[in-house]
Amino acid sequence: MENKLIAPRKIQGFWELMPKEEVLFENMLARLRKVFENNCFLPLDTPVAEFSEILLAKSGGDVDKEIYRFTKGHADICLRYDLTVPLARFVAGNYNVLDFPFKRYQIGKVYRGERPQKGRFREFYQCDADIIGEELPLTYDAECIKLYAPCFKELNLDVVVEISNRKILAGYFENLGGNVVDLMTIVDKIDKLPKDEIVSLFKEKGLSGSDIERTLKIISTSGDIDKIKSLSVMCDNETFQKGLEELGVLDDRLRALGMENYTYNLSIVRGHDYYTGTVFECYIKSKRNLGAIGGGGRYDNLCKNFMDVKMQGVGMSIGITRLFDILKSENLLDTENLNSVDLGIITFDETLNAGLSLMTKFRESGVKADIINETKSFKAKMKEANKRNLPYILILGEDEVKSSCYTLKDMRSGAQEKLNFDEILQKLKV
Amino acid sequence: MENKLIAPRKIQGFWELMPKEEVLFENMLARLRKVFENNCFLPLDTPVAEFSEILLAKSGGDVDKEIYRFTKGHADICLRYDLTVPLARFVAGNYNVLDFPFKRYQIGKVYRGERPQKGRFREFYQCDADIIGEELPLTYDAECIKLYAPCFKELNLDVVVEISNRKILAGYFENLGGNVVDLMTIVDKIDKLPKDEIVSLFKEKGLSGSDIERTLKIISTSGDIDKIKSLSVMCDNETFQKGLEELGVLDDRLRALGMENYTYNLSIVRGHDYYTGTVFECYIKSKRNLGAIGGGGRYDNLCKNFMDVKMQGVGMSIGITRLFDILKSENLLDTENLNSVDLGIITFDETLNAGLSLMTKFRESGVKADIINETKSFKAKMKEANKRNLPYILILGEDEVKSSCYTLKDMRSGAQEKLNFDEILQKLKV
Repeated sequence: MENKLIAPRKIQGFWELMPKEEVLFENMLARLRKVFENNCFLPLDTPVAEFSEILLAKSGGDVDKEIYRFTKGHADICLRYDLTVPLARFVAGNYNVLDFPFKRYQIGKVYRGERPQKGRFREFYQCDADIIGEELPLTYDAECIKLYAPCFKELNLDVVVEISNRKILAGYFENLGGNVVDLMTIVDKIDKLPKDEIVSLFKEKGLSGSDIERTLKIISTSGDIDKIKSLSVMCDNETFQKGLEELGVLDDRLRALGMENYTYNLSIVRGHDYYTGTVFECYIKSKRNLGAIGGGGRYDNLCKNFMDVKMQGVGMSIGITRLFDILKSENLLDTENLNSVDLGIITFDETLNAGLSLMTKFRESGVKADIINETKSFKAKMKEANKRNLPYILILGEDEVKSSCYTLKDMRSGAQEKLNFDEILQKLKV
Repeated sequence: MENKLIAPRKIQGFWELMPKEEVLFENMLARLRKVFENNCFLPLDTPVAEFSEILLAKSGGDVDKEIYRFTKGHADICLRYDLTVPLARFVAGNYNVLDFPFKRYQIGKVYRGERPQKGRFREFYQCDADIIGEELPLTYDAECIKLYAPCFKELNLDVVVEISNRKILAGYFENLGGNVVDLMTIVDKIDKLPKDEIVSLFKEKGLSGSDIERTLKIISTSGDIDKIKSLSVMCDNETFQKGLEELGVLDDRLRALGMENYTYNLSIVRGHDYYTGTVFECYIKSKRNLGAIGGGGRYDNLCKNFMDVKMQGVGMSIGITRLFDILKSENLLDTENLNSVDLGIITFDETLNAGLSLMTKFRESGVKADIINETKSFKAKMKEANKRNLPYILILGEDEVKSSCYTLKDMRSGAQEKLNFDEILQKLKV
């Protein structure tokens, strides 16, 4: 029977890196994990799939077309589309054994069956840190915002966090007598649409010319906390005033935490309707046009679908797949000089075993040494070393084995030296 | 409308750890990653889902009831059941850009819809390291076996690797004129069934009494390479002799690599029928009864369903979910003394901001400091510190803020001292 070949296709939009990129990505994740743990967050790793009734609880069971849903036996299952609902399920299910405030971080894959396009993935990583508790003062909101600082310091990126509080616009729109959700949705589009379209949208929703003018003034407010406080005279709605007040307390906490590189921007609303107070987004400094690479905020009643106890939450998120994708397309990833091998060892038939012993000795000393495939000729081995861009090679003849003195070749400069094991170690570990 | 609560159930058999266990598990993964990279393996992270035609290619499209399969739009998709088929797809799809031998490791979740039972999971982690190339000498088989040594050294576990070569039994059974696959399947059960049942099974397959006796003698052969070599007189089948010869070369390489703690055991066949030469299993020393915690071997023509080029492979695997589960049930995990917080800071209303500044200062110096929730009373804060088993707490009154000299309490001994920042740092970093 002839073997019919199948094209080795990956599902489009599912995230997959080449191995050297993956080294950099794993390194990024490891650094972030270290930061989260240094900030007293515990890791969580929930299943990729959950019962549909859990994941669709929020929507009352309505199936979103973006969700991957299937049955297995009697089980109705979905792939998770975020890490928040699984967190809610975990907190409700383990309410009696967890210590609150519960600070957890999670880095994991999530699934959205939308049409793939540049910068949009169907399978991608989310990276979330959340604090959950029955009573959470604004200190925790500040802590989540401050967390961006050590995270991006580890990643060598300058970022700015832009902060608002949804209560401000909610109270203001409530006061205008408009539909708060509809009007918030318009504000959420402010970065994507020209100003006149925004104005038309407000007009469609029944806002008068002077209301629109005042609204644009408020949502274009950005800067430091004094700018925010000065809005206090514009509206006497209680929720509006509460929002301003909360930002005042938040600012006080952020300063105490030593947070720099943040600003207020009242046009930040965050699409998700579950945010109820503080909201924020994180941008690469001087590259705001690339869009937010993180965001988060305060939400109430995380576990409402799963238990009667009211749990508040505040969380921050970094869009690590998107961020990595940006760094890649902006050529900010150096995979060129990244080597999985520090030292290639070239052996001959009679020195293969000696080469293997030497390889073990180097590896045990922390040098990534590797024998170049013994089946190749000497010439082919040298070619291989060049092709793989190995920084150093060691040529192991019988004389070298006898004398324990090895020829080390620096492949960039072409220089060759005779060195013993310790000298090579010293040279490679610089 | 009343809120109808949904029970926060996880799908049975899907792997999920409590946060402190997860710290230990993540730590285990990080150590293994470091070992793989030190041994010149590159990481790979393929999607959790693949087209069904890819994952079911081996079986010619037959649907195994254990597989999670579903459709999304026009796409027929499966959750991966191992990391090997995705590797084959990746290698075939990137054949022109990869350097061979391609050494990759992958740690990822896989899915098997079998009935969950003790030690069996439906979603669990696999951890594989494989070497793929067009011509792979036995040196690479040795390298994969040797890789267990640094892996388990990092995990502080003593293990033994038991090795065989499928050619030995394949050749021997071929010589007997029996059905090789059937007879191998019987050998694979030798740890699970009493000897007389094994004998009956062989009898059913038509083996004579003397053949069974010889067979049992061969498959009960274990020990060093000389024991293996001494079998050479028992059968002159070419494949049988080739198997013995390969083990001889392998042993030579293993010694050169400095491998210790291995033995030969001709009853090792590994269930999977894709292994074609070297096969091995890894056991915790003195706990062989717990079963293999890893295994692997040599396989031919990895990519045969996806391309015409013949790629050989050899790989090792560690059953990390099973291993962690064993360590947990044998009480070998110390989550008791594991703290997400090194230092709890107790503040008062007037010292909250000073406490936040101090917390940042400690965290920046690598100490996991955390403010104990400000909403609680002093007494409740102390109770919280006890409940969370915090090793140290710092009580921050106004005098402490003024003098920069803090009361540090060792929660285990109860001892209190007045120390400045640097002194506390020194004490906590010991």
